[in-house]
Amino acid sequence: MIDLRSDTVTKPTEEMRRAAYEAEVGDDVYGEDPTILRLEKEAARLLGKEEALFVTSGTQGNQIAVLTHTRPGNEILLETDSHIFYYESGAVAAFAGVQTRTIKGTNGEMDPGEIEAAIRTEDQHFPETGLICLENTHNRAGGAIVSPENMQAIHTIARKHSIPVHIDGARLFNAVAASGRDVKEFTDHCDTVQICLSKGLGAPVGSIIAGDKHFIKKARKWRKRLGGGLRQAGLIAAPGLIALNKMRGRLSEDHEKARFLKETFQTCNGIEIINEVDTNIVVADVSGTGMTAAQFVEELERKGILAVTFGPTLVRFTTHYDVSMEDIGEVSRILKAQF
Amino acid sequence: MIDLRSDTVTKPTEEMRRAAYEAEVGDDVYGEDPTILRLEKEAARLLGKEEALFVTSGTQGNQIAVLTHTRPGNEILLETDSHIFYYESGAVAAFAGVQTRTIKGTNGEMDPGEIEAAIRTEDQHFPETGLICLENTHNRAGGAIVSPENMQAIHTIARKHSIPVHIDGARLFNAVAASGRDVKEFTDHCDTVQICLSKGLGAPVGSIIAGDKHFIKKARKWRKRLGGGLRQAGLIAAPGLIALNKMRGRLSEDHEKARFLKETFQTCNGIEIINEVDTNIVVADVSGTGMTAAQFVEELERKGILAVTFGPTLVRFTTHYDVSMEDIGEVSRILKAQF
Amino acid sequence: MIDLRSDTVTKPTEEMRRAAYEAEVGDDVYGEDPTILRLEKEAARLLGKEEALFVTSGTQGNQIAVLTHTRPGNEILLETDSHIFYYESGAVAAFAGVQTRTIKGTNGEMDPGEIEAAIRTEDQHFPETGLICLENTHNRAGGAIVSPENMQAIHTIARKHSIPVHIDGARLFNAVAASGRDVKEFTDHCDTVQICLSKGLGAPVGSIIAGDKHFIKKARKWRKRLGGGLRQAGLIAAPGLIALNKMRGRLSEDHEKARFLKETFQTCNGIEIINEVDTNIVVADVSGTGMTAAQFVEELERKGILAVTFGPTLVRFTTHYDVSMEDIGEVSRILKAQF
Amino acid sequence: MIDLRSDTVTKPTEEMRRAAYEAEVGDDVYGEDPTILRLEKEAARLLGKEEALFVTSGTQGNQIAVLTHTRPGNEILLETDSHIFYYESGAVAAFAGVQTRTIKGTNGEMDPGEIEAAIRTEDQHFPETGLICLENTHNRAGGAIVSPENMQAIHTIARKHSIPVHIDGARLFNAVAASGRDVKEFTDHCDTVQICLSKGLGAPVGSIIAGDKHFIKKARKWRKRLGGGLRQAGLIAAPGLIALNKMRGRLSEDHEKARFLKETFQTCNGIEIINEVDTNIVVADVSGTGMTAAQFVEELERKGILAVTFGPTLVRFTTHYDVSMEDIGEVSRILKAQF
Repeated sequence: MIDLRSDTVTKPTEEMRRAAYEAEVGDDVYGEDPTILRLEKEAARLLGKEEALFVTSGTQGNQIAVLTHTRPGNEILLETDSHIFYYESGAVAAFAGVQTRTIKGTNGEMDPGEIEAAIRTEDQHFPETGLICLENTHNRAGGAIVSPENMQAIHTIARKHSIPVHIDGARLFNAVAASGRDVKEFTDHCDTVQICLSKGLGAPVGSIIAGDKHFIKKARKWRKRLGGGLRQAGLIAAPGLIALNKMRGRLSEDHEKARFLKETFQTCNGIEIINEVDTNIVVADVSGTGMTAAQFVEELERKGILAVTFGPTLVRFTTHYDVSMEDIGEVSRILKAQF
Repeated sequence: MIDLRSDTVTKPTEEMRRAAYEAEVGDDVYGEDPTILRLEKEAARLLGKEEALFVTSGTQGNQIAVLTHTRPGNEILLETDSHIFYYESGAVAAFAGVQTRTIKGTNGEMDPGEIEAAIRTEDQHFPETGLICLENTHNRAGGAIVSPENMQAIHTIARKHSIPVHIDGARLFNAVAASGRDVKEFTDHCDTVQICLSKGLGAPVGSIIAGDKHFIKKARKWRKRLGGGLRQAGLIAAPGLIALNKMRGRLSEDHEKARFLKETFQTCNGIEIINEVDTNIVVADVSGTGMTAAQFVEELERKGILAVTFGPTLVRFTTHYDVSMEDIGEVSRILKAQF
Repeated sequence: MIDLRSDTVTKPTEEMRRAAYEAEVGDDVYGEDPTILRLEKEAARLLGKEEALFVTSGTQGNQIAVLTHTRPGNEILLETDSHIFYYESGAVAAFAGVQTRTIKGTNGEMDPGEIEAAIRTEDQHFPETGLICLENTHNRAGGAIVSPENMQAIHTIARKHSIPVHIDGARLFNAVAASGRDVKEFTDHCDTVQICLSKGLGAPVGSIIAGDKHFIKKARKWRKRLGGGLRQAGLIAAPGLIALNKMRGRLSEDHEKARFLKETFQTCNGIEIINEVDTNIVVADVSGTGMTAAQFVEELERKGILAVTFGPTLVRFTTHYDVSMEDIGEVSRILKAQF
Repeated sequence: MIDLRSDTVTKPTEEMRRAAYEAEVGDDVYGEDPTILRLEKEAARLLGKEEALFVTSGTQGNQIAVLTHTRPGNEILLETDSHIFYYESGAVAAFAGVQTRTIKGTNGEMDPGEIEAAIRTEDQHFPETGLICLENTHNRAGGAIVSPENMQAIHTIARKHSIPVHIDGARLFNAVAASGRDVKEFTDHCDTVQICLSKGLGAPVGSIIAGDKHFIKKARKWRKRLGGGLRQAGLIAAPGLIALNKMRGRLSEDHEKARFLKETFQTCNGIEIINEVDTNIVVADVSGTGMTAAQFVEELERKGILAVTFGPTLVRFTTHYDVSMEDIGEVSRILKAQF
């Protein structure tokens, strides 16, 4: 099977496995795991923040950000199709007790004017606007890059109103690789950022949340409450370090595969690509084939290709380390033969 | 001053005051206040529900509905400008822990197809859709009536997916009066409904939440947690009974006043009425006057008229029992003289 | 029936009813109800705090205090049998998300040393101690007075650790009346205090929460979220003002009735009074009669006396304005005849 | 340094590291990690439950149990010094919104009669008793074994009242090893159980929560909300499998080391062992030495021994895989030389 369901399916490389095998470890709840400490230090430096904290998933990193920045009865502003709103099981309401106010973006970018209009004034009928969340790249917008310019405009408004900004940067390095800009051009425009070591970077498990010292201290306790305080976590951090240091450079390959896939689709009948394919995600509207997304995905599965539904007639394809350019060529042949 | 800020400013009538004075009372936490029991029984009968519960405000009734119907991590569907989302300080997230998913309506009516599309499927990434909230009349849509047909279409979808429907009917009797339809034509299409005894009905304090016995039993405990368990509440229920029984009939007068106000505005320069004026609310866009809403409201105040801002250039006027047709005539003269 | 179940059953006096009838009112959500403003001002002055806020019940006042002082994941210290822990349906956990750490008191007084030992140090495994709650008089300790000296000792510790202190003073004026000390000798040792206008003071509905300006401002929003923002609340505040101003002086009568009841019980076979009867509550252990508390309560009801169970073999009798000394004499005769 | 602070400091064995290196992995969010599936299946079988779920820590397993079994406003019964109450940062209140009602145990065992007396009756003032939590072995009771007989008595009461029982079995296999009884003799008396793969079993990371299918399905979503949904988690599950299968047998060695330590202390002046030393934990009261716990711990650290404070004059020593019998002998020599 050629698995294009998600870049989360990537398996650890031989080097990552070896790193896990050899990892120097300690009890991280006591702050004594040297590999975790190294990973957190390197991540903080890379992201341009004072400190960083290892967490077990992107969802956990995002939840910790919301829990730390806000308090119950606050309202957070985030994009209508953002991961935090769409895919985190309503956890921000269940745990942090914050109300989600969504703003529809264009290719993942929210309009700064709409953000400013949505910020609440002081009134006993109104929740306080407690946080603005951005997502970069934006998954449901098809891996779209939110430009540093858009981020800056939003961050400027946020600072004017003393509202923190958090980036869900689960795939931030895809934005970095595709835009050719430095990661700090993105992270300069936020108070906190979460990045995933899995997905395109290929680590088996783990994410990073970065911010200032004060934030990380409070975040550490929320991580403990969520059950994310681990013991000899160096075993996971070691592959994470390789992901962070050696895999960023190769993300462009995934983007190339996605572009090739896009070109293939453009020659297929009944399939329309609806996203810009900025990075490693291709979203196809298959309604022209007369199939629903579910039927289309099933049809592809019979031919050895895995993808996921992304709406009633939308199908998402995600390229990653574990599908080679040859695999993509094979996908192309199969698709062209049928459509 | 002629106070058109809200129908919440209405003062109790002489008859209501006398009813309070003479009210037969008992300890309602023990279920022994005869006036409360009578009010709850009459309200339940009128609304076509098994039981009803007195609560101290519309917000409290809505919060109890959400707390009783849902559990944390659920998602509720409601209109983008609904009171529960817009004006209840994020309480549904803070207390019930539910995520708000808003749907933009037209004149307060949400599209049933959009509702159905927003209902979540079973997936560990998704919150469960736990409740659909309607608002009737819809305040921020300018007192718009949500038709029984729209309600029925939504209720049909809701039942198909086993999702309860709650009506925030703070001004439901305005919809009843203006449409000439029976209140049950509205309440038949919901599991629970909240109505306010204050506002157009003129009681000083209080609302009612109605539903089936099982719901009311659980609601009673949530009311206690919210601090809404009162003692000799008959003192408030007595005016509430008069509001319920004798004031519904006169709501049409408020609607007439609003229509007259609308006609006045239509002759004014720079002022545009942006709502249908179905009931007792008139929303004016004053941008054509060169003033912001805040400036316009201030200008009117100098002339003895009170209204409220409803957006950067929007001003809301609400008619009610305590402004007479003569008052409205005076407002008309003042407005025509200036604009 | 002679109703000794609770002082919550007192009915408003003729003067209170008249005050309600004549109350000057306005919309309190807009801050325009003159009677509410007067009540809040007088209550603040009397309690020695900057500001006060009218709430619909003691539970609501307590919940607002916890919501305003703490944040989720905090721990609060309170007596094992305190109202907030025992009788508020777990609301502090449900709404404020705080963990309850109970300390067993003696006659309602917690040992300051135990309080200090229970305050958490800084550690990621520990909740932060966010609030200390006292109850005075202490209901389940049989209306016991917590002495100003005990309160001062606890308050001193609290300040040392920068932890606020809240008094659930639902029956604080009973402590004042019985001890002959000024109310400020009690309220000086807390940051916030809640008092009930109902119970011994006889108002039909309502409580007061008092504290500094900053606290009251935040409390006002939490009150709105709980649904406690009322409209023409002066109708309730007017009897409340009479309760506050004219009924405090007569609480000693209730205490006298309770002492008389105690003496009666001391002559009865099989009944043992287990509390000090500091104020208006008498708690009897009826195990010596061979009856359970439920059976005993039923037996009394047949003879025209109402009381409540307070444990498997405990029965609580509460004196109040609506039972006269003659009623108590009648109770005495009935009891002596049987036991 | 000889590290007796906690059994959490154990480092993975060579075999565990190799297992991680060679682990067969997949995306566990998709349910495709074969090693995780194997671990969960074996754990469920071993614990005598229908299904099991891998979680990242004991705290996460406990939190998931509380979140799944209860709803906000419930009350849970648990021992005064239990881990869930004492060491989980108030998370049960912050996330699940449940009130903690603690019962003081004897050597970790709560009295079944006290449990039954603490179960709430139906009353709008009362939270519903939603869960009973046991801890076995009980950490703060000094690794005390809660007997199957005590568990059975409590479970019988719980079933009578339809209340689920959860075991925090972070060190359950220590109880199994020390008592010589089958693990099911313990787990038969609960609805759900959490066990740690780290601690005495030596895995670097991870715990298991087990229960019936319905429970695990709901637990899976709460795990996702907490950020515990991992990707190629087989890398961690592989050492976990070795912990589960090969390390249980050797826990008796840790108990022997603890007994030896206890005997040593009994010959020391000023040090009194206050627990039974049922398993691998020794708690010493050092007040007789004239030192506080903190001073004593510091003094030992200077001599190459690490322990933790467990109260103002209490010090805890925990034996585990990474301290050998020889290390314990060395500790003994050092202690005897000084005290």
